[in-house]
Amino acid sequence: MDSQVEHNFGGFNGRGRPHQDPPIEREMSLTLEEIYNGCTKKMKISRRIMNEDGHTSSIKDKILTLTVFPGWYEGTRITFPKEGDQGPNTIPADIVFVLRDHPHKHFKREGTDLIFTSPVPLGQALLGCIVDVPTLDGRLLHVPITEIIHPNYEKVVPGEGMPLPDNPEKKGDLRIRFNIQFPKKLSSDQKLSIERAFFG
Amino acid sequence: MDSQVEHNFGGFNGRGRPHQDPPIEREMSLTLEEIYNGCTKKMKISRRIMNEDGHTSSIKDKILTLTVFPGWYEGTRITFPKEGDQGPNTIPADIVFVLRDHPHKHFKREGTDLIFTSPVPLGQALLGCIVDVPTLDGRLLHVPITEIIHPNYEKVVPGEGMPLPDNPEKKGDLRIRFNIQFPKKLSSDQKLSIERAFFG
Repeated sequence: MDSQVEHNFGGFNGRGRPHQDPPIEREMSLTLEEIYNGCTKKMKISRRIMNEDGHTSSIKDKILTLTVFPGWYEGTRITFPKEGDQGPNTIPADIVFVLRDHPHKHFKREGTDLIFTSPVPLGQALLGCIVDVPTLDGRLLHVPITEIIHPNYEKVVPGEGMPLPDNPEKKGDLRIRFNIQFPKKLSSDQKLSIERAFFG
Repeated sequence: MDSQVEHNFGGFNGRGRPHQDPPIEREMSLTLEEIYNGCTKKMKISRRIMNEDGHTSSIKDKILTLTVFPGWYEGTRITFPKEGDQGPNTIPADIVFVLRDHPHKHFKREGTDLIFTSPVPLGQALLGCIVDVPTLDGRLLHVPITEIIHPNYEKVVPGEGMPLPDNPEKKGDLRIRFNIQFPKKLSSDQKLSIERAFFG
């Protein structure tokens, strides 16, 4: 990727020198699946190009190809130097894409960890259960929970999080959190059994 | 309370005119009991006073009396105009006290409401309990809870919060929140009773 370094040599004072506009930023929303696996995005831009005569210009479409590597963090900036409009005595602006996470129906990420929140009925929270977690690469994890699930309980599954941007072979953790669903009402039989369970 | 308004008349440019330093701010930490009931605080300050000759000065102690009205919010500022050091050609700075809540062992306030967080064993959360809440004016409230206490459950007791600063006769609400304490282990007998309660 080119980098643009501009030195302002004193005394010349910029008259007649080409200047560059500030970068043009665009947000690019990616699904967690796209970030997990890495992907290539083609982005069409319309830009003003100087014609060969050096005086007139015309609008042309151009395709920018953007390679997203696995695990890139939200906020990662990808710069295409000088892809803005051309003009006389102008250095075209850089075009910058800023990565955003598209909201996911199951997962949120925190750093390199994936957070999965599962509802669990109180009875299963106390007696144990198996949580099914669909992964971003299309597998289905069956995670058995044998400990008692209390409101702040978190089940950590190592290595099932997002790829590390520096080393996509390694992955963060999957962290399963729970919404414990309490009964709305209890029958007198239920109350009796609960009393027996907790008050002997 | 005096208020200090200073106009800068153009052309004079301040030479020889008395100037005033920015206000001196001090945090004043009050207990929720002091704010609930209102209180008077005497604050000793040491300040430089000009002697009668108009040229020499000496340090003297002074007591500032601060009246806190019931329910005043955190961040309330009480200004004592011109109580800073005296000096030749100087208007003494204002002294400003800023109210802070001293952490309380039971309560936190949110606006005019008081928040009380109570631990409750899971069995009582399901079967009902009475919560004892010591008030800021020395009473003891017995609050019966007959609904099932789930993790986001909140019991509101109207009129047992902080006095409204504008009308201390009226009070906000007391809001009781719960830390539901789950058992760490369950015996097989307990598991059997829980299974009977939740899975019939």
